[in-house]
Amino acid sequence: MRNSYAVGVDVGGTKIAVGLVERKGRLLKQSTRNTPTSGPFAVVDAVIAVIDEVLVGIHPSEVAGIGIGLPAQVDFFRQTVEFCTNLPLAGVDVRSLVMSRVKYEVVLDNDGHAAAVGESRFGAAKGVRDFLMVTIGTGVGGGLFVGGEPYRGHRGLGGELGHTMVVVGGLPCPCGGVGHLEAYVSRFAIERDARETAATFRGATMTRFAGVEAGELTAEHVIAAANAGDEVAAGILMESANVLGASLAGMVNLLNPELIVIGGGLGDRTAIFAEVVAVAIEREAMAGRRDVRVARAEVGNDAGVLGAAALAFDEYDAREGLH
Amino acid sequence: MRNSYAVGVDVGGTKIAVGLVERKGRLLKQSTRNTPTSGPFAVVDAVIAVIDEVLVGIHPSEVAGIGIGLPAQVDFFRQTVEFCTNLPLAGVDVRSLVMSRVKYEVVLDNDGHAAAVGESRFGAAKGVRDFLMVTIGTGVGGGLFVGGEPYRGHRGLGGELGHTMVVVGGLPCPCGGVGHLEAYVSRFAIERDARETAATFRGATMTRFAGVEAGELTAEHVIAAANAGDEVAAGILMESANVLGASLAGMVNLLNPELIVIGGGLGDRTAIFAEVVAVAIEREAMAGRRDVRVARAEVGNDAGVLGAAALAFDEYDAREGLH
Repeated sequence: MRNSYAVGVDVGGTKIAVGLVERKGRLLKQSTRNTPTSGPFAVVDAVIAVIDEVLVGIHPSEVAGIGIGLPAQVDFFRQTVEFCTNLPLAGVDVRSLVMSRVKYEVVLDNDGHAAAVGESRFGAAKGVRDFLMVTIGTGVGGGLFVGGEPYRGHRGLGGELGHTMVVVGGLPCPCGGVGHLEAYVSRFAIERDARETAATFRGATMTRFAGVEAGELTAEHVIAAANAGDEVAAGILMESANVLGASLAGMVNLLNPELIVIGGGLGDRTAIFAEVVAVAIEREAMAGRRDVRVARAEVGNDAGVLGAAALAFDEYDAREGLH
Repeated sequence: MRNSYAVGVDVGGTKIAVGLVERKGRLLKQSTRNTPTSGPFAVVDAVIAVIDEVLVGIHPSEVAGIGIGLPAQVDFFRQTVEFCTNLPLAGVDVRSLVMSRVKYEVVLDNDGHAAAVGESRFGAAKGVRDFLMVTIGTGVGGGLFVGGEPYRGHRGLGGELGHTMVVVGGLPCPCGGVGHLEAYVSRFAIERDARETAATFRGATMTRFAGVEAGELTAEHVIAAANAGDEVAAGILMESANVLGASLAGMVNLLNPELIVIGGGLGDRTAIFAEVVAVAIEREAMAGRRDVRVARAEVGNDAGVLGAAALAFDEYDAREGLH
């Protein structure tokens, strides 16, 4: 059958995941590889290599297109990469580079937006018109759905939750700003706090638990230690989750969503974020808004791949006048 | 002619303003009175009295309806008052109470939303689809327009900018929360800071300038002193404006609006907020979003009245199937 499949690509700071996806969201084939850091062309080469892998044996007429979620500020309307903290992609015409090599239509979006599309179409936000998705990973991303559609804003850059203000004059953010959510709630933030704490007497239990030096502690170590009962590790996560909760309570006041979905590589790994956020909203959101549900991502790690594929199907349908 | 007029009512914490408004936004008659504080019925009585005043000599068939902006959390879909910091209106069925006495259809909205509708229809945001309006007055309010329409959210409570987070664990907010924008940028915040500072040696120039005791300093005194060159007063305004700027830069990252309109009783009185916000966005918003314009409200004090009237016209047209 024609256009039965789309390819979804989720480019992360550390890993590129690609899937061949059916219209109803079934993931038929998957492939991953590490994200190269040696330059934009290496990243594009790696993306094309994994796309080629999942397309082996598939006839071109069966493919609706390719959707790519990038850990970057993507101008959705112009399909350009405006800014990228973790990869050298700013100003690179990723769409044209990929299209010149794979011969399919390509649509780019921010990775958090793609994950929100994935949860909206196939996961925890199915059927929900107004929701926020927060992805906690290397950074903090996410997306905002309004009336059943991704919120795009004036230039297609809307929905960037990670760089909202939580502490004016606070800690430096990887984006170059100060006091943003990402400076308190990301892998970056948790590892900064864990390594600082572990360098003192109080945090020594974490390094003993993980069997590494203070400077090598990862967010995964902190979560594992917290799960094993380490109170210092649990405290670091709790502080981070409290900031997320306060911030989301404020966004609930601003946006009055029906649902908040918590996902991303770290958000998926522990229940603490969703639990603390639910309590914070109950305590801090204003009257009439507290019926907002807080859920963990259902599609989980695949949300980015599935959402990117769904965007490719949407673009195909729009081109063919099927909408 | 039928339905040529609507009545717009702007209920503030200190003043009720009412206007008889033509469809194109011309204000034909106006009346104001002080907001009673003795209870909900006194407020409703005062609202009805001023409505009656502007309707003297107008035939009922000429009136499309009445729009009322309240300094309250209004569930727009159910037309109920969920929460009200400054007036005793929470849970009061304001719409039914007014309708039982004036015999016209009544539509309620949050006052900041009404002001945003006013600027959208007749003022600084005319023709702009995606914008934020911030009203700085007794509190901080505002509204969010998406795709040319007021953003309502899941239960009609969306667009409340004043209670987003700016400093986790920060200063107490009049709403009972902590660290919200309103705790740093409202009349409440500026008077708190001015009175605290004026009680010390450093702030004595403000009280001398205003000719009042430290405890009697108002936000208007602070603005007048700053305009006259008092550096302490200017510093208080600047700190407040800096928090507003940082917060709005974060909202620009989240919402990617085309325009930010600064208005409200205090926002209208000084250029400092709009100036500092423009600089903060230039410095702190992420790439691709800095083309957002920052403008001062044009309709100014009348935005609430005109916006409320516009909402009444809209409701009339929707009832009559004119949309």
